Amino acid sequence: MIDVCLLGTGGMMPLPDRFLTSLYLRHEGRVILIDCGEGTQTAIRKAELRFKPIETILLTHYHADHVSGLVGLLLTLGNESRNEPLDIYGPVGLKRVINALRVLVPELPYELNLNEISGGDTFTACGMEITAIEADHGIPCLSYGVFLKHAGKFDPEKARQNGVPLALWGRLQKGESIEGYTPEQVLGEKRQGIKLVYSTDTLPLDEVVRYGQNADLMVLEGMFGGEEKNERAELTHHSTMNQSARLALRAGAKQLWFTHYSPANPHPEEFENEVREIFPNCVISCDAQRTTLRFVD
Amino acid sequence: MIDVCLLGTGGMMPLPDRFLTSLYLRHEGRVILIDCGEGTQTAIRKAELRFKPIETILLTHYHADHVSGLVGLLLTLGNESRNEPLDIYGPVGLKRVINALRVLVPELPYELNLNEISGGDTFTACGMEITAIEADHGIPCLSYGVFLKHAGKFDPEKARQNGVPLALWGRLQKGESIEGYTPEQVLGEKRQGIKLVYSTDTLPLDEVVRYGQNADLMVLEGMFGGEEKNERAELTHHSTMNQSARLALRAGAKQLWFTHYSPANPHPEEFENEVREIFPNCVISCDAQRTTLRFVD
Repeated sequence: MIDVCLLGTGGMMPLPDRFLTSLYLRHEGRVILIDCGEGTQTAIRKAELRFKPIETILLTHYHADHVSGLVGLLLTLGNESRNEPLDIYGPVGLKRVINALRVLVPELPYELNLNEISGGDTFTACGMEITAIEADHGIPCLSYGVFLKHAGKFDPEKARQNGVPLALWGRLQKGESIEGYTPEQVLGEKRQGIKLVYSTDTLPLDEVVRYGQNADLMVLEGMFGGEEKNERAELTHHSTMNQSARLALRAGAKQLWFTHYSPANPHPEEFENEVREIFPNCVISCDAQRTTLRFVD
Repeated sequence: MIDVCLLGTGGMMPLPDRFLTSLYLRHEGRVILIDCGEGTQTAIRKAELRFKPIETILLTHYHADHVSGLVGLLLTLGNESRNEPLDIYGPVGLKRVINALRVLVPELPYELNLNEISGGDTFTACGMEITAIEADHGIPCLSYGVFLKHAGKFDPEKARQNGVPLALWGRLQKGESIEGYTPEQVLGEKRQGIKLVYSTDTLPLDEVVRYGQNADLMVLEGMFGGEEKNERAELTHHSTMNQSARLALRAGAKQLWFTHYSPANPHPEEFENEVREIFPNCVISCDAQRTTLRFVD
């Protein structure tokens, strides 16, 4: 399962009652954070979540509202006597940006592993499979797909048929390969995993629809509400709530959460009826919106 | 008069119920901001103060909790269609730090004037006279004195005696020199000005006492409470509340506000009785603590 907390829902600038958008994803006690604008560390504290388990930070792009809380977060992680390395992923420019920001954090008691990635790259973080999706924001920008595989059910009959020694069953079940035996020899067919998409700061992306087929949760841009904002969204390389709802519909997602509301969209709930007509199962998220995504079988 | 708002009172890291220390000083509609940690722009909004009148930012030093909100603030000032230049003052290193941070704000619709200053330097900002005081924090660090002069009362008798044409009286009264006449020719003796000191992140400073003689307000470090924290304060180049209270006593200040509480000092009000025994007129400041300092005569 994945515990999901949308720490903030704002875009552009933090507001007294709205933190900047950032997603906290916990799987088996290990945490991925997506984006880290000014105040994200405060949002984590307010949501009563922990800093220590954060192993990986995914950055969508380097506009300040997605990055400028990083310096403070890195320091706070250091103050928690962290010494495990921290992995940071982001589009091209990551090293230039982080190395510049380190003027304020020249010394940290842990290592930063900086990984510049592109749309289509796939890697594993915190036991989850991450896929970078090229976004269309006028500058290098990524959306992220998160997938948690669900192994087949343990099948003792199959294990016996394959002659797997009883002593190895437990570890094989957990996915380890050992003494020439593989998990497949004790497990049934793979089951349905958990899929999540996080995409903001972009024109509507077909790739989000393709990746997000039957996604358990899509967290998509709610910068603007109402059809009359289409032009403004296009000009600024953002999406409207209606456009995001259409992506969720086309993907056949189970649920859609909006985030990254413009400061000029102070009451996104006013658009609830309108977006529900497009995609009924959507949530006008508030800061610290939470859920737990579980395997269905 | 000077309107004073202590936007936040925290040190080290922002907390959900405590913004980082920053002082907003308004005189005749012009604003000086001292320090700008993560979340300061949110604190300004929460205090319902304005961004536009900020003309000058004074930075004490370049630890992140005093600077890392600057990127967001600069952007927000830009979004308010500012085109007037912004003056930033700070100790040596200012240009290196700001130029590095500009990786996140490469383009602004206004100029930044960066002024590296040292203890003893005096300059005028927003109609107030600023004095930099060398602090003792283990790295370049300044405290700031702010002084608002109070010209003498208009003296029509003196103006007549000096043969000043009636038509010039008004402008001379306001401090302009004109047509060879000076304000002194129409004004009586200078009156008592307004004096304020802002000093955090330092061992107790004799210079703060010297500058702060009879200060109307001292805003001093409250990092730690209780005598048993003297050693910790010394090690980390900070001051305890008791030490700050002794500075205010020695200076004969009218009032002392504490700020820059450590996250490990969540209830500084527990030390109120103790510090009041040293210096009675002190305030265990909360975020958005306000006052208006007025001329006494």
